[in-house]
Amino acid sequence: MILLTRRATFSASHYYWNDGWSEEKNQRVFGRCANRNGHGHNYTLEVTVAGEPDPVTGFVIDLKWLKDVIEEKIMSAWDHRHFNLEVPEFAATIPTSENIAIAAWRRLEPALAAGARLAAVRVYETPEIFAEYRGES
Amino acid sequence: MILLTRRATFSASHYYWNDGWSEEKNQRVFGRCANRNGHGHNYTLEVTVAGEPDPVTGFVIDLKWLKDVIEEKIMSAWDHRHFNLEVPEFAATIPTSENIAIAAWRRLEPALAAGARLAAVRVYETPEIFAEYRGES
Amino acid sequence: MILLTRRATFSASHYYWNDGWSEEKNQRVFGRCANRNGHGHNYTLEVTVAGEPDPVTGFVIDLKWLKDVIEEKIMSAWDHRHFNLEVPEFAATIPTSENIAIAAWRRLEPALAAGARLAAVRVYETPEIFAEYRGES
Amino acid sequence: MILLTRRATFSASHYYWNDGWSEEKNQRVFGRCANRNGHGHNYTLEVTVAGEPDPVTGFVIDLKWLKDVIEEKIMSAWDHRHFNLEVPEFAATIPTSENIAIAAWRRLEPALAAGARLAAVRVYETPEIFAEYRGES
Amino acid sequence: MILLTRRATFSASHYYWNDGWSEEKNQRVFGRCANRNGHGHNYTLEVTVAGEPDPVTGFVIDLKWLKDVIEEKIMSAWDHRHFNLEVPEFAATIPTSENIAIAAWRRLEPALAAGARLAAVRVYETPEIFAEYRGES
Amino acid sequence: MILLTRRATFSASHYYWNDGWSEEKNQRVFGRCANRNGHGHNYTLEVTVAGEPDPVTGFVIDLKWLKDVIEEKIMSAWDHRHFNLEVPEFAATIPTSENIAIAAWRRLEPALAAGARLAAVRVYETPEIFAEYRGES
Repeated sequence: MILLTRRATFSASHYYWNDGWSEEKNQRVFGRCANRNGHGHNYTLEVTVAGEPDPVTGFVIDLKWLKDVIEEKIMSAWDHRHFNLEVPEFAATIPTSENIAIAAWRRLEPALAAGARLAAVRVYETPEIFAEYRGES
Repeated sequence: MILLTRRATFSASHYYWNDGWSEEKNQRVFGRCANRNGHGHNYTLEVTVAGEPDPVTGFVIDLKWLKDVIEEKIMSAWDHRHFNLEVPEFAATIPTSENIAIAAWRRLEPALAAGARLAAVRVYETPEIFAEYRGES
Repeated sequence: MILLTRRATFSASHYYWNDGWSEEKNQRVFGRCANRNGHGHNYTLEVTVAGEPDPVTGFVIDLKWLKDVIEEKIMSAWDHRHFNLEVPEFAATIPTSENIAIAAWRRLEPALAAGARLAAVRVYETPEIFAEYRGES
Repeated sequence: MILLTRRATFSASHYYWNDGWSEEKNQRVFGRCANRNGHGHNYTLEVTVAGEPDPVTGFVIDLKWLKDVIEEKIMSAWDHRHFNLEVPEFAATIPTSENIAIAAWRRLEPALAAGARLAAVRVYETPEIFAEYRGES
Repeated sequence: MILLTRRATFSASHYYWNDGWSEEKNQRVFGRCANRNGHGHNYTLEVTVAGEPDPVTGFVIDLKWLKDVIEEKIMSAWDHRHFNLEVPEFAATIPTSENIAIAAWRRLEPALAAGARLAAVRVYETPEIFAEYRGES
Repeated sequence: MILLTRRATFSASHYYWNDGWSEEKNQRVFGRCANRNGHGHNYTLEVTVAGEPDPVTGFVIDLKWLKDVIEEKIMSAWDHRHFNLEVPEFAATIPTSENIAIAAWRRLEPALAAGARLAAVRVYETPEIFAEYRGES
């Protein structure tokens, strides 16, 4: 079995805010991230699929098709967007790296099911902080 | 003469918008960057000073002092902020990398004048795009 | 158990071509990679071994010996070479990242068996695309 | 389950030397690393915790708290230090990357137990060499 | 004056060979690079333009236009190509990084003249080797 | 004119200490760097030469020869060494990045004079701090 990974990057804004809390508690828990004007990151997304190389093509997955799926499911919806204000998954969920990784999985897994088994999604918020999700089981 | 550089990173949001233009023209010129919900970047700032190493310390500049100046003049004002909404230089100026580099120079140059000659400020918006400013002359 | 990894880089050429297909089908499936003049990459190879640190040396594996094995088994055969034309594994197999990772495993695993358990081989074709192989089981 | 990783960097010195061996054997086994004046590295430490995102905060772990723990347990003890001469774990253990990863785990695991499950510690001695430890089981 | 840089990457093959020399002399001077099967690299190109930010847009140059020019003049002609066999500039000139930088300048400078002053072209053959050309004067 | 750069890396130890000062003053000025057990870095050295590509070889300088010169003049003397204790230039000079860049220039410039004009030497102490020296004039 081979794990094949493709990386993509996008730029987005977010903030951390829990509507059930006072401003003071939001500030205390979330610090500078609670600034509701938002701040942003150059996110790096790594999508890993698992499988055997096809003996005819040598591919676990066609990387051009994988790029198209990432473009359609992630880039067109998240790049140059504000997670809290424009991305439905985060209407009531805080867009931490952890939750962004889960949301990316849920967007990609059904779309990839025809051609590959999604093995992991990793999201770098900065080069220093990243979250990885490998699905439910 | 030695050129000594210190790098720092910060995360911020921005958008591109000219109030004198129609929405249509803003979209046409600025594309996805015209989204007024904002999007963001992990900016990297490189501050370069020029001088001779002090024969007693070996320093062109005390890098701890340089870090403090960058912290006071840039980080405390720009990190986790929205350039258009919270940074005065950009009330009527579009926060492109070019203009952010000039603004960084103007914040740093007077503060550093006592200890070093500022030679260049470089701002990376992403690893693929960066602007450098070396002052007026 | 510790996983210890050493990275190495090499430059090589390759193309994607299936002799059983028409030129048109090769172009359709492999796109620009079907150009038989070849194109190339700076490949990065990561070799990971697993084991316990030796209490006397602190080593899971002697990294100089690991470097020598990588030099002998991979670098001398693949660096500044054309995978399709000069590397026997790819006489009838397409040199995708997936297949290069498997070939690297097969070259390294027997050579390392005396001193360590090979745990994974990762091959970066570019910083954006990489394949990892962890052996049969 | 999410794996969340925070990276930190520190600079330290070390050498490789086994007191039970002759100088000649130390030189033969450890090569340039046996120079007892020491040499150093910019180490990169990656600390990975595993858990479910808290539904209220979106956090697997509060990254500010994780940073504080890394600061208290690792940075304050190892940064700008000489492993052999100043870090107790290495009084009689050679500070290879393998052993540094284990030592980092032992410092971090009890401190993090209240808030998260430590999943892995990775130590880069250089960008080309790194060791990862995932605990006893 | 601002220096604004955009980075792009492409993969290509090349070899070093002087037809006026014997095989032995080519091997002696060019070493492994004389292998006429070719080898390849992930090249990184940095294009730097100089100018004043437009007061209306904040742009020294429209980076989307710059990207289009790089795409048309460089990427479409060099990406996934063999320099010696497919790129006219190198029919009788050895495709060293030095000469590739000059060729990139000559392709880009006329195309950019309408909108910006080209200041420098830098070509990375690997992260360890790069050539920069700033034009004739 | 082309600027051609080759990068090399080495690991070394150093500390900052002025014998003419009290321990207290050394601590105050140099902070953690005054720890006389030393600490270390993975230094990156960039050596830039300037010239015209030779019409026969396409080379500004033979990069293998440049590598040999760097090996002989820098690596063999500095790699896995302690600057303060083992490198003559720093017997009475503090091994800051600034002074290391000047020392590298003085080692390389005479050795390269036969084949190229040295244009710049850049020394990265960490990815965040670097010094560049371009010679006297």
